[in-house]
Amino acid sequence: MFNETFKKLNMDYFYFPIEVENDKLEAVVSGIKCMNYAGFNLAKPNKIKILDYLDELDELADKIGSVNVVVIKDGKLKGYNTDGIGFVQSLLDETAMDLSQNTFFIFGAGGASRALGFTLAHQGAKKLYIIDKIDEASTSLANDINAKIRVCAEFVAFNNAPVESLLQRSNVLVNASGVGMNPHLEHTPVNKKFLNKDLFVYDIVYNPSKTLLLLDAEEVGCKTMNGIGMAIIQGIKGFALMTGMAEPTDIMKDAMDNIIAGPKNRSDE
Amino acid sequence: MFNETFKKLNMDYFYFPIEVENDKLEAVVSGIKCMNYAGFNLAKPNKIKILDYLDELDELADKIGSVNVVVIKDGKLKGYNTDGIGFVQSLLDETAMDLSQNTFFIFGAGGASRALGFTLAHQGAKKLYIIDKIDEASTSLANDINAKIRVCAEFVAFNNAPVESLLQRSNVLVNASGVGMNPHLEHTPVNKKFLNKDLFVYDIVYNPSKTLLLLDAEEVGCKTMNGIGMAIIQGIKGFALMTGMAEPTDIMKDAMDNIIAGPKNRSDE
Repeated sequence: MFNETFKKLNMDYFYFPIEVENDKLEAVVSGIKCMNYAGFNLAKPNKIKILDYLDELDELADKIGSVNVVVIKDGKLKGYNTDGIGFVQSLLDETAMDLSQNTFFIFGAGGASRALGFTLAHQGAKKLYIIDKIDEASTSLANDINAKIRVCAEFVAFNNAPVESLLQRSNVLVNASGVGMNPHLEHTPVNKKFLNKDLFVYDIVYNPSKTLLLLDAEEVGCKTMNGIGMAIIQGIKGFALMTGMAEPTDIMKDAMDNIIAGPKNRSDE
Repeated sequence: MFNETFKKLNMDYFYFPIEVENDKLEAVVSGIKCMNYAGFNLAKPNKIKILDYLDELDELADKIGSVNVVVIKDGKLKGYNTDGIGFVQSLLDETAMDLSQNTFFIFGAGGASRALGFTLAHQGAKKLYIIDKIDEASTSLANDINAKIRVCAEFVAFNNAPVESLLQRSNVLVNASGVGMNPHLEHTPVNKKFLNKDLFVYDIVYNPSKTLLLLDAEEVGCKTMNGIGMAIIQGIKGFALMTGMAEPTDIMKDAMDNIIAGPKNRSDE
């Protein structure tokens, strides 16, 4: 997505993966600071480890406690988190909903959930129910959101939770976990029988493009959306932060469409 | 040249420039060791500075005292010097000469001259005359070759040197300096009047493709060659060392031809 955009805009940049050996993040970051990198993205577990090596930290990333974009300027590193923004903006682009009128039922309390939960709270969501297989994780996330942003999050115990009635009181069901991701196509975070047709169902997974959760939700009559939009907006935000340029929204969306279509379809043009 | 070859061989590698800030080579190298780099090339002044940070050093590179290729394997760095090999092999590809029957008059005693002088001596050249604007540099290089490889090098003082008669006793005139390189097209290391038609004239400069030295030499009737062949063979050797693959000679030569022809000519196909 980045490289297609660089090519189209005739920019002398290149985006590529760096594998970081265990416990070597500090050495890698010290080296990168002295080279001609504009910035980098991070994956688990370095989204949290990187906090020890930054010169500056964006306020929301600080509250979330993790960083997925680092911008390098004059040898200084500044960390941002665009995961949550990617989620919220893609949701608003699709639904134009008023967050303050909507309740979210969020499955998962890992890094992605943390980012989108904090961002939803920060942008005024009415209420967040948070459930995770590990009760300590969901409790801790709900408490953190309430303490650091505003009181709007409620922990839901994993066993014997009244999922059906909570979903009736919710407007948006979010799968913020990896459940249902390829190759575990037969897994879903929420049993179909608990779904109701008034829910908007957002699955952050985009491989497959329709998880079992989304297929079930469509059958029930829900509006649905997968994580592609979130991934694209994250990329656009990261691009703008790292290059200092305006957000190349249309170009990056086209690039992602081409990538999803695959080389076969592209040559059919 | 590397990237065209990677594309043709469908290899998941990318070659790109890293700008290293002053005095930051150690930090950069420490970082690179912990990432998924196969290796790197070096430019001045890091060809010598890198010696402090290597785990292993090839024997010829050790004698030359500089490194232009580093191979990374299991987190260890091994240094090589392919500059001299690029020169000698390209010369032998072109002329099939017997080095032990040939005397070289080498202009310049910098890094390139050092690499090709050591390699010529190592591969059995009959005699090397070495001249440089800075007499200490040429003296030191001649002494080093004689001490570390074998006695075959002779220092020539820059002022009042009997250039014409030395060239009559030489078979190959090498410009191993940057004299005549773009934009200094009107400069030449050796006055035309000292040339004779029996000399083979090798200019390591390849921009312009014909320096004033080569134009003069052609007019006198000499056979000539520029530094493109040396650059290609260096690249081929570096490619093989870094990837562990066979030398992709034809592919890299084609890639270099395409680069020299430029995008305009390529689209004319």
